[in-house]
Amino acid sequence: MTLSMSVTIRHAEPDDYDRVISSVDAWWGGRQMAGMLPRLFFTYFRPWTFVAVHEEATIGFLAGFQSQTDPRQVYCHFIGVDPDWRGHGIGEALYQRLFVEAATRGCYEVLAVTAPTNHGSIAFHTRMGFSFLPGPEYEGQVPYSPDYDGPGEDRVRFRKPLLDRSERSHSIDD
Amino acid sequence: MTLSMSVTIRHAEPDDYDRVISSVDAWWGGRQMAGMLPRLFFTYFRPWTFVAVHEEATIGFLAGFQSQTDPRQVYCHFIGVDPDWRGHGIGEALYQRLFVEAATRGCYEVLAVTAPTNHGSIAFHTRMGFSFLPGPEYEGQVPYSPDYDGPGEDRVRFRKPLLDRSERSHSIDD
Repeated sequence: MTLSMSVTIRHAEPDDYDRVISSVDAWWGGRQMAGMLPRLFFTYFRPWTFVAVHEEATIGFLAGFQSQTDPRQVYCHFIGVDPDWRGHGIGEALYQRLFVEAATRGCYEVLAVTAPTNHGSIAFHTRMGFSFLPGPEYEGQVPYSPDYDGPGEDRVRFRKPLLDRSERSHSIDD
Repeated sequence: MTLSMSVTIRHAEPDDYDRVISSVDAWWGGRQMAGMLPRLFFTYFRPWTFVAVHEEATIGFLAGFQSQTDPRQVYCHFIGVDPDWRGHGIGEALYQRLFVEAATRGCYEVLAVTAPTNHGSIAFHTRMGFSFLPGPEYEGQVPYSPDYDGPGEDRVRFRKPLLDRSERSHSIDD
């Protein structure tokens, strides 16, 4: 972990939503992402929603929740890092916090999806120890689920098992 | 309740998502709503997600969840009815199913939001016994929360307390 010691990972407070939602489109290079992040994720899933803070500035966030269909599963809906802060391990630290929270509560896997065109997210999830859920191959590269989030909304689906401590350390250091 | 006896309200199955997501923009008169309803709501909140079915056709749905910040609260993220089936009590029946599920699990209130321009939704929630959460008045009509779901995304916020049986019957019959 190369995370700078001056960055704090903590549960999101209600005010954090306003800071995050104003930044999220810019952090995704101008893509319209804000509509996918209504306030409900910060209001109702506080145990699973985290921010990375550096000197009062919110520089990253993760919005997750525990499945209510199978409470042993945790889902990461959104993770984002200020482009000025990428490459410092902020995303890794946010996910590690989620993994610890999930393992503490007895959950056995974390799930997530991303667009098959989002190569940065695919590489990041692979580095974090996620594997692909099966599907046909997207342009010969990754398995994906066509129309997963509606017509034309293809998604790559990720799963990370939560392992015992020795295996978890190993996967982090890979 | 004027709900036709040939309409069934049941928990959503995975396949129901594909039927709902293909219809949702049309049901909202062409507004782009599908992006607000990723599959996660059907996959991970099955105890709180219902469909109304008539002879194999999905004619309405409700996607809710239990708050993980305060598990005594339930939130309704999305409720929709096929325009051809409006005025038959389908929306009421979906909400009543949610209220029963919530009360059974010891929850004390149901929350929801809508756009202040969505007069149909505001009238519907008022009929269902929801009250407005406080805020400045939107065009002198209803209290609202400016920028609630991000810049320019104003919302009216609703709350319905779950009462004892006699009071609940009274509010339904109003």
